[in-house]
Amino acid sequence: RKRILITGGAGFVGSHLTDKLMMDGHEVTVVDNFFTGRKRNVEHWIGHENFELINHDVVEPLYIEVDQIYHLASPASPPNYMYNPIKTLKTNTIGTLNMLGLTKRVGARLLLASTSEVYGDPEVHPQNEEYWGHVNPIGPRACYDEGKRVAETMCYAYMKQEGVEVRVARIFNTFGPRMHMNDGRVVSNFILQALQGEGLTVYGSGSQTRAFQYVSDLVNGLVSLMNSNISSPVNLGNPEEHTILEFAQLIKGLVGSRSQIQFLPEAQDDPQRRRPDIRKAKMMLGWEPVVPLEEGLNKTIQYFARELEHQA
Amino acid sequence: RKRILITGGAGFVGSHLTDKLMMDGHEVTVVDNFFTGRKRNVEHWIGHENFELINHDVVEPLYIEVDQIYHLASPASPPNYMYNPIKTLKTNTIGTLNMLGLTKRVGARLLLASTSEVYGDPEVHPQNEEYWGHVNPIGPRACYDEGKRVAETMCYAYMKQEGVEVRVARIFNTFGPRMHMNDGRVVSNFILQALQGEGLTVYGSGSQTRAFQYVSDLVNGLVSLMNSNISSPVNLGNPEEHTILEFAQLIKGLVGSRSQIQFLPEAQDDPQRRRPDIRKAKMMLGWEPVVPLEEGLNKTIQYFARELEHQA
Ligand SMILES: NC(=O)c1ccc[n+]([C@@H]2O[C@H](COP(=O)([O-])OP(=O)(O)OC[C@H]3O[C@@H](n4cnc5c(N)ncnc54)[C@H](O)[C@@H]3O)[C@@H](O)[C@H]2O)c1
Ligand SMILES: NC(=O)c1ccc[n+]([C@@H]2O[C@H](COP(=O)([O-])OP(=O)(O)OC[C@H]3O[C@@H](n4cnc5c(N)ncnc54)[C@H](O)[C@@H]3O)[C@@H](O)[C@H]2O)c1
Ligand SMILES: O=c1ccn([C@@H]2O[C@H](COP(=O)(O)OP(=O)(O)O)[C@@H](O)[C@H]2O)c(=O)[nH]1
Ligand SMILES: O=c1ccn([C@@H]2O[C@H](COP(=O)(O)OP(=O)(O)O)[C@@H](O)[C@H]2O)c(=O)[nH]1
Ligand SMILES: O=c1ccn([C@@H]2O[C@H](COP(=O)(O)OP(=O)(O)O)[C@@H](O)[C@H]2O)c(=O)[nH]1
Ligand SMILES: O=c1ccn([C@@H]2O[C@H](COP(=O)(O)OP(=O)(O)O)[C@@H](O)[C@H]2O)c(=O)[nH]1
Repeated sequence: RKRILITGGAGFVGSHLTDKLMMDGHEVTVVDNFFTGRKRNVEHWIGHENFELINHDVVEPLYIEVDQIYHLASPASPPNYMYNPIKTLKTNTIGTLNMLGLTKRVGARLLLASTSEVYGDPEVHPQNEEYWGHVNPIGPRACYDEGKRVAETMCYAYMKQEGVEVRVARIFNTFGPRMHMNDGRVVSNFILQALQGEGLTVYGSGSQTRAFQYVSDLVNGLVSLMNSNISSPVNLGNPEEHTILEFAQLIKGLVGSRSQIQFLPEAQDDPQRRRPDIRKAKMMLGWEPVVPLEEGLNKTIQYFARELEHQA
Repeated sequence: RKRILITGGAGFVGSHLTDKLMMDGHEVTVVDNFFTGRKRNVEHWIGHENFELINHDVVEPLYIEVDQIYHLASPASPPNYMYNPIKTLKTNTIGTLNMLGLTKRVGARLLLASTSEVYGDPEVHPQNEEYWGHVNPIGPRACYDEGKRVAETMCYAYMKQEGVEVRVARIFNTFGPRMHMNDGRVVSNFILQALQGEGLTVYGSGSQTRAFQYVSDLVNGLVSLMNSNISSPVNLGNPEEHTILEFAQLIKGLVGSRSQIQFLPEAQDDPQRRRPDIRKAKMMLGWEPVVPLEEGLNKTIQYFARELEHQA
């Protein structure tokens, strides 16, 4: 039984991670500023003796005593992280320095929720962990991409210089229940649009690709990585790649919707292809995604349908 | 006549910039923590009514009133920035955020001393400002490269979000008097070795290339960029490219030294080719380097010879 801090624990991924770690019997402290997270995502644990929720911004120092830190605090969807680029940068730079300072002081271990965005608009396909990436340092996505890249750099600086134990997960697109309804990511957009009979908004031609993993697969990967001895970066994602247009059609079909597909202008610097090479995670963690895409999508569709009812 | 802040103003480039701006009749405030800078570099201005020297670390907030900020504070040579990677990261992230916060509050204009290192080990040659770079986010140079990349990102975030006026100079290798004797950069190493009859230490085969500009050319470029209306990044460097082995031979010749050339192991992630494309600076600033390489080297050799005498 460990004392575990989850920053960003009231968000989409963080709340599922909270569920797993609580179920496993750990003491879990969630720190969140509720920028994109919601109390509702973790409210079923409030009152439990092993659970604590702290309303705190990681840009400010934090003094607590823990054994492991899952550092997830950061806006994650493009509209959210572009909403206040300065804050996104502060969260990923100062916030990460603070969590590394905490990790150092208490002799804990920190796992950084990094991202496939460190590879940018990749010129190598699929992306493995050796690839240095292709990122525009001054483009509209830079606050997130460069913020996460330098957060990784910080982890390894603390590891080499201070002996801090770090783990770095490069997370590829993930979906599931508790994604925000309106954070603008493609899966939530398409499902909501399909459920509400609105046009499915495809940016550009829809020929750009992504590979989506279901959130329970990711959570298992994160916990497995944290408790491994692999300090170098590890991709966590589902290698099943589809075009965005295929996703639109698939989701429309699963919902049984009569929505049209609506083509909108391409987003600037939108990565054209993205697919994880997960051989490292397979080999070194024995991890791979197990939830089939359609099964994950159906669960997510059910969740959004209930949310819409709840709103009405 | 302007009130001008130079962070890192007691360093190599900053002290020459101080000289120029003082000669032009401005009020100059130098802020430096003397990590690699020295009071000696600016001591000829101490006591002048337009000059102020503040011993301050940019990682801490700074409250002063100025019109322009040349933000140079950062270790610059590989041995210096690798000496304490965490501090290099803090200086480039928190330090830059502080200077942008200051710029915002007082409505000033900030010029960031960025670097050709944002291009990393480039796969495009020569490097123009559109190139996104090829940087290892977790390599030994990352504390500097990623630190500077995200510092650029921060500048443009403050520009777009807060209307802060920014200028970004991507500075290529520069040399001249007041380079630190022992900071391990190639020009100072070779000159000192040649003057002292020691072996000239070439890392790797010496076939890697660099292009070196003399410091007075850079200083003119920085001032010209600051006072232009170009907010996008501008390369400042001398496009005359040589292999490191050629440099060793040239310097040995100019010094008239009988030193041998000594081949040492290659440095990790050492950029193999680097040469600025300076068409943008030429066209938009009317700037280009004018000091011939040999002339600059001779001045620098004289400086180092005097320094060695001074030490003895
Ligand atoms: N979901 C994905 O597809 C995906 C892909 C790659 C990486 N990631 C990373 O995983 C992490 C979690 O992403 P998510 O999808 O759950 O996003 P999310 O927006 O649901 O969760 C992020 C959480 O961090 C909190 N937060 C943001 N800034 C904070 C701050 N300064 N202080 C304290 N809390 C703060 C938010 O309130 C939210 O609860 C993020 O770091 C993200 O970059 C996610
Ligand atoms: N010289 C080059 O070839 C070159 C090339 C590219 C970019 N640059 C950039 O130009 C700038 C100046 O470089 P330089 O060659 O004069 O190096 P330098 O080491 O001589 O000067 C840097 C100065 O910054 C000061 N400094 C460092 N950290 C500080 C902190 N936290 N607070 C306050 N002061 C701090 C140092 O004491 C020093 O005086 C740097 O930002 C560097 O990255 C230089
Ligand atoms: O328990 C801790 C210890 C440190 N920090 C923060 O982490 C940062 C980086 O820590 P580090 O030890 O590197 O910094 P230092 O205190 O030496 O500047 C510090 O500035 C603190 O703000 C924190 O939030 N909690
Ligand atoms: O309503 C939407 C939202 C997103 N996208 C596209 O879907 C892909 C994934 O976008 P998302 O914002 O989910 O995540 P990203 O992988 O870009 O961070 C990108 O190519 C977007 O341009 C789309 O076509 N329609
Ligand atoms: O005159 C100033 C104004 C701000 N800052 C620093 O700049 C940072 C970023 O400024 P910003 O206005 O973005 O931050 P805020 O104060 O809103 O957090 C602040 O945290 C301060 O530490 C400073 O050093 N001098
Ligand atoms: O004593 C030295 C110092 C540097 N170098 C090489 O010279 C080039 C320029 O190195 P420097 O540290 O001056 O600057 P950089 O451009 O790498 O930041 C690099 O290829 C170094 O490996 C060398 O051969 N001998």
